[in-house]
Amino acid sequence: MNDRVTLRDVAREAGVHASTASRALNPETRGVVSETTVHRVLEAARRLSYRPHAVARGLRTNRTMTVGMVVPDLENPLFPPIVRGVEAELGGAGYSILVGNTDNDAERLRTMVASLLAHQVDGLILATAAAHDDLVDELVERRVALVLVNRFAEDVPTSAVVGDDRAGIELAVAHIASLGHRVVGHVAGPGVLSTGRVRAKTFLEAAIRHRLDVDPGLVEEAGWFQVEPGRHACLALLDRRPDMTAVVAANDLLALGCYAAAAQRGRHVPQDLSVTGYNDMPFVDLMEPALTTICVPYREMGHVAGVSLLELMRRNPDLPSPPAETIRLTPSLTVRASTAPPRS
Amino acid sequence: MNDRVTLRDVAREAGVHASTASRALNPETRGVVSETTVHRVLEAARRLSYRPHAVARGLRTNRTMTVGMVVPDLENPLFPPIVRGVEAELGGAGYSILVGNTDNDAERLRTMVASLLAHQVDGLILATAAAHDDLVDELVERRVALVLVNRFAEDVPTSAVVGDDRAGIELAVAHIASLGHRVVGHVAGPGVLSTGRVRAKTFLEAAIRHRLDVDPGLVEEAGWFQVEPGRHACLALLDRRPDMTAVVAANDLLALGCYAAAAQRGRHVPQDLSVTGYNDMPFVDLMEPALTTICVPYREMGHVAGVSLLELMRRNPDLPSPPAETIRLTPSLTVRASTAPPRS
Repeated sequence: MNDRVTLRDVAREAGVHASTASRALNPETRGVVSETTVHRVLEAARRLSYRPHAVARGLRTNRTMTVGMVVPDLENPLFPPIVRGVEAELGGAGYSILVGNTDNDAERLRTMVASLLAHQVDGLILATAAAHDDLVDELVERRVALVLVNRFAEDVPTSAVVGDDRAGIELAVAHIASLGHRVVGHVAGPGVLSTGRVRAKTFLEAAIRHRLDVDPGLVEEAGWFQVEPGRHACLALLDRRPDMTAVVAANDLLALGCYAAAAQRGRHVPQDLSVTGYNDMPFVDLMEPALTTICVPYREMGHVAGVSLLELMRRNPDLPSPPAETIRLTPSLTVRASTAPPRS
Repeated sequence: MNDRVTLRDVAREAGVHASTASRALNPETRGVVSETTVHRVLEAARRLSYRPHAVARGLRTNRTMTVGMVVPDLENPLFPPIVRGVEAELGGAGYSILVGNTDNDAERLRTMVASLLAHQVDGLILATAAAHDDLVDELVERRVALVLVNRFAEDVPTSAVVGDDRAGIELAVAHIASLGHRVVGHVAGPGVLSTGRVRAKTFLEAAIRHRLDVDPGLVEEAGWFQVEPGRHACLALLDRRPDMTAVVAANDLLALGCYAAAAQRGRHVPQDLSVTGYNDMPFVDLMEPALTTICVPYREMGHVAGVSLLELMRRNPDLPSPPAETIRLTPSLTVRASTAPPRS
């Protein structure tokens, strides 16, 4: 029965984090843990008759017990919860997570990934995938343990954990249509990202299905998922179609840009313009007006990505890879104060 | 004159980021940069007669060109701008930044730092310092190139770049006093952190100077700089002193907790309770009501920390260390809608 005792059991018994227990048990890393803690962990391991080989079963040797994660924009509040979810899962298995931020810069992404690989991370989680992504191609070819999160790459089979963007936009459009809006704009995200692309495509399909005014002039692409590009895009829509009564924005930051654009044109939200966001990022419930938005389980997304990566890292590299899988998490609609029926 | 040509010049000439130029110029890392880019960078270096030794002057060898940065809570929106500032400075000098998040957990901090040192980062920036911090002691003893940011450790000489917390709280209390408030509470941050400690101490001194009601019952410490602990602390204050008309919160998240506590007790902000925050984190200008707060130049803080670390990393390790320096950046007050005179 002893080989059922895991690192987690020892950590729990000792009252420390699994990554700490892992360091305390390894003579080479023991020096970085306080003496009292080392003592507590070794005692716990002894009491439980813990045998390290149980946890090391199936693992390659020379692991660094470190995982790299790269995000495109740390100031976008949706990414920290994903990081936390990943950490909760992989930290529990004894890994440290090193995070790199690329500021949406393709060159920085490459050097960041190169730097992580040079540090011999055991696996990578990328939240930066473009719809067509050469870097992802290369990493798959090199058989790096890789999971994409939030965004997926279209042409190459990888494990990916994303939100169900089609379902989310469908919820937003159905809500707006049910309030009685007919002239509805879409502030789209960048078409080079799966999130921007899928949401824009779904918006058009849903608009047709709900018999909204279908005019290419009612869709405007923002260069990035940020407030300022959202403001510019919404201004373009308002100037082109002053009769527009609602906007479905492809994320919350773009929606906040729509708030600013409406204020600039003397329109009140929601009386003169209903606005929906996407992500339910922290604090949008405290905004004026509180934002109606699509809630995506980002922390859960991080957890699931962590589980997927653990599986990849534990697989035997000499066996054929398991089929790549895209896991889609279901979003929900949260109605707050930024949407209302149009003035009649 | 050729030895004046720097890596930055080559990068500018080639139209790429300095970190990319650095990789392209190094035969060992060249493989991670696209061929076109390598070609462009080598061409630029040739045109400018760039000699790599100019930039390497004074550097130790076996550098990884990687810097580790550890933050206590990635979901607190004040940290991403600091990371961005650090990246702008160090990225420009050719470094990649790897970020670790500790979730305010001392054990995870230790394993994270150990993991970064095991990856042979060239320097460390910690935003996690406790007021009395054994880990900082150890790192200084081991002569790791180290800069503290946002928080400092009291007992040990290190380079630190922090906000001037005394000046910031003085601004908040003076503003509240000038509105006519006399019974003013303080939701304090954790006393184990310099930010919590200095702000609480300054609050008391400023309260005396501005002749506010000085009652120990008007100060309540929150366990962490987060919304929920802020709500609890403010409820305690409101229940102890129902005549309290204003609260100075030690940061914005605590202030948002005060909003929630006020709502829970049927008080309107600012009519029944004025609230000030600290940090001017993103989006508090869009909250209902928009938060009056202390604006700290966090991105600048990251820049200055980056400059300090560059100096430390470039010094000759055989010479005595330069004296440790604490750089304090001056905050400012931004008055919005969460403060008003008390009802008379």
